[in-house]
Amino acid sequence: MLSVEEALQKILAEVNVLEAETVPIMEALGQVLAEDIISDINVPPLDNSAMDGFAVQSKDTRGASEKSPITLKVTDTVLAGGTPKKEIVTGTAIRIMTGAPIPSGADSIVQFEDTDDQKNKDASSNQRAGQVSIFAETRPGRNVRRTGESIAKDKTTLKRGTVIRPAEIGLMASIGKSRVKVIRRPVVAILSTGDELIEVEKPLPDGKIHDSNAYSIAGLVKRYGCIPKMLGIARDSEKELVKKLKQAQDADMLLTTGGVSMGDYDLVKDIIARDGEMVFWKVRVKPGKPLAFGKIKGRDKNGRAKNIPHLGLPGNATSCMVSFELFVRPTLLKMMGKQNLAKPSIDVIIENTIINDAGRRIYDRAIIEKRNGHYYARLTGPQGSGILSSMSLANGLVVIPEETEKVNKGDTVQALMLDWNEEVNI
Amino acid sequence: MLSVEEALQKILAEVNVLEAETVPIMEALGQVLAEDIISDINVPPLDNSAMDGFAVQSKDTRGASEKSPITLKVTDTVLAGGTPKKEIVTGTAIRIMTGAPIPSGADSIVQFEDTDDQKNKDASSNQRAGQVSIFAETRPGRNVRRTGESIAKDKTTLKRGTVIRPAEIGLMASIGKSRVKVIRRPVVAILSTGDELIEVEKPLPDGKIHDSNAYSIAGLVKRYGCIPKMLGIARDSEKELVKKLKQAQDADMLLTTGGVSMGDYDLVKDIIARDGEMVFWKVRVKPGKPLAFGKIKGRDKNGRAKNIPHLGLPGNATSCMVSFELFVRPTLLKMMGKQNLAKPSIDVIIENTIINDAGRRIYDRAIIEKRNGHYYARLTGPQGSGILSSMSLANGLVVIPEETEKVNKGDTVQALMLDWNEEVNI
Repeated sequence: MLSVEEALQKILAEVNVLEAETVPIMEALGQVLAEDIISDINVPPLDNSAMDGFAVQSKDTRGASEKSPITLKVTDTVLAGGTPKKEIVTGTAIRIMTGAPIPSGADSIVQFEDTDDQKNKDASSNQRAGQVSIFAETRPGRNVRRTGESIAKDKTTLKRGTVIRPAEIGLMASIGKSRVKVIRRPVVAILSTGDELIEVEKPLPDGKIHDSNAYSIAGLVKRYGCIPKMLGIARDSEKELVKKLKQAQDADMLLTTGGVSMGDYDLVKDIIARDGEMVFWKVRVKPGKPLAFGKIKGRDKNGRAKNIPHLGLPGNATSCMVSFELFVRPTLLKMMGKQNLAKPSIDVIIENTIINDAGRRIYDRAIIEKRNGHYYARLTGPQGSGILSSMSLANGLVVIPEETEKVNKGDTVQALMLDWNEEVNI
Repeated sequence: MLSVEEALQKILAEVNVLEAETVPIMEALGQVLAEDIISDINVPPLDNSAMDGFAVQSKDTRGASEKSPITLKVTDTVLAGGTPKKEIVTGTAIRIMTGAPIPSGADSIVQFEDTDDQKNKDASSNQRAGQVSIFAETRPGRNVRRTGESIAKDKTTLKRGTVIRPAEIGLMASIGKSRVKVIRRPVVAILSTGDELIEVEKPLPDGKIHDSNAYSIAGLVKRYGCIPKMLGIARDSEKELVKKLKQAQDADMLLTTGGVSMGDYDLVKDIIARDGEMVFWKVRVKPGKPLAFGKIKGRDKNGRAKNIPHLGLPGNATSCMVSFELFVRPTLLKMMGKQNLAKPSIDVIIENTIINDAGRRIYDRAIIEKRNGHYYARLTGPQGSGILSSMSLANGLVVIPEETEKVNKGDTVQALMLDWNEEVNI
């Protein structure tokens, strides 16, 4: 049976980075740049003030202090967005606002807090045009933002392959780029299979269960920035399954849940083997052993034939979600052009004893908490692969290697963090 | 001057959790439950098989092994979604598929892999109705999923206050809940101020700069699950500012950028003080000192007067983003009903020497990497508060306390993780 790494490698080998699309920068959050961003302007466009204060020649401030202020003649005021009309010569200062261009002759800015400006302002605005007392020395370059110090003209500002976050959106805006070329988001078709399944909004006949997998899986698809396409439920008949699979033809990936075990009506893997290509079935992992991976035939938007990667996820609610995190997530990230496919992981001290009698790699659901500088993990109760509440309580998966037969309370193991972000108290 | 904690406390004291709305479960990702979810069904609805295999009485399998199999008579087959028609008595077995109800009299399931079923299947399907050889012992309860083991009827499945992730969406689907009551997402009005600003899509006259803050801030608003409402740019005139502020009247929060420094045309704080209420101005932090917090008058959708919290963010690109992470983010999370408002933080070994001559708490932009089991942080180059590229390169903010005058290379400091998720290689 394939190991987790072998199985993932086989899947990744079959998928490529998707093509690019051009979108408004605000819609590109989480997408990957498909072009180098080269600025045709300097940001800032000219030397300007980082503070509200006075433009001066720094040598004129030598020795200035609160006790022995130095007085300069104020010759002008310059605002952000304005243009200086006068030059600084020895003994003079120009009032300047944050962002305003540095007047010729000035080499630094003394901030208002180091002058008597506010006092003058309170007393009489007529004094403003007159003079200013400087209470502190300055030095060349102080409070001056240099032309191009944030973004240099004709240089590459952001490299192709960069993931777009809020700072990158801001950077693009600052150089006047309102639309950007990025790798498009994968469309993921989701199909649940099984005679026992009933749609969420329908009443539940005796012995049947609601289809929950399509929802948890669609939630994960959205969470990782992709677009779910819900195909509903296919009963356990070849005809219905084949018909539903046709609806996945224009998707970038097909996810089915159920139908991949050893049962007589586990048709999914049989139909893939017949109509498409089955790459592997079964992985040495718990939960999630009966994972199937293959390719079905589809068409791109230009009508050209293409292969659509198909992951047949196990029908058990927890197996299904764990398989998604281990295999679907990195595959989608690769298709999106992302480089870092690994789930964040940390070392944790386990607070349960775990027996591994299956010889598979176990991913048990756990609550991971930091106490006294260490991370501790305790299991979320019974780990049956149908018990979705174990997944709901968890913020991480503890990993028990296939060759480890027993992990004792107090041992250190690796854990994958499911939700290492602001939503989870860690 | 207020400390970061004092300022944040004053802001949080002025905002409340927003009211609830009812939405389809798939749209609720990241929102907070505004009701307890109590299931009116058991999941699973009856005892059922966790495996494809044979339902048996476990005592009948005692001593079974590959070398000395035990043979049972197969009396029936039961499928997922079906109903058992026969009982198990000593010496008999019923073929059973994953999810199918456990037949009366059976206490465990022997999986196909521990029987000769697949061999029979390959050889002749006629053998199926006859008998099965069992190769391994089983024990009572083995491979049986108990009624309600995942979700118990009439018990609280999910508590009010729970953040909805994919597993919670799946859980709700499994109990037939297609719509859910959650705290609604805050609408955040965003207004940039300054005569020097030009819209992103317009050509840039000499000496002017594109408005980037509105974009980085809107990106952050989206990133944390809220809804940005872009109001554009207000020039430095009282009339225009007052007019634009009116458009924020139905928002849940107003964010302005710029206009809060000491300059003559920093009108934002003056107008708030006049028309609304100014709670504080200036925080002992770097970057981000000239943060203003107040309230403006607005109306809810029923026309009732309300106060809208207004954060006046500094105009410098980096100050603006850091202020958002420190003050706006926790405020929005509180409004969304979230409990954990703290940004994830870790201890890092600093690879630069940092001087703190401002007596404020410094949040310097850094690249944080794990090497040999330790986290290291190195600054992203010049830390000028206008240099947005420093934020784009960073995945964390290193924190230098206000009373620390110098941090030496090799010292351990705290870092806030900006993007501790799959997008950043950590």
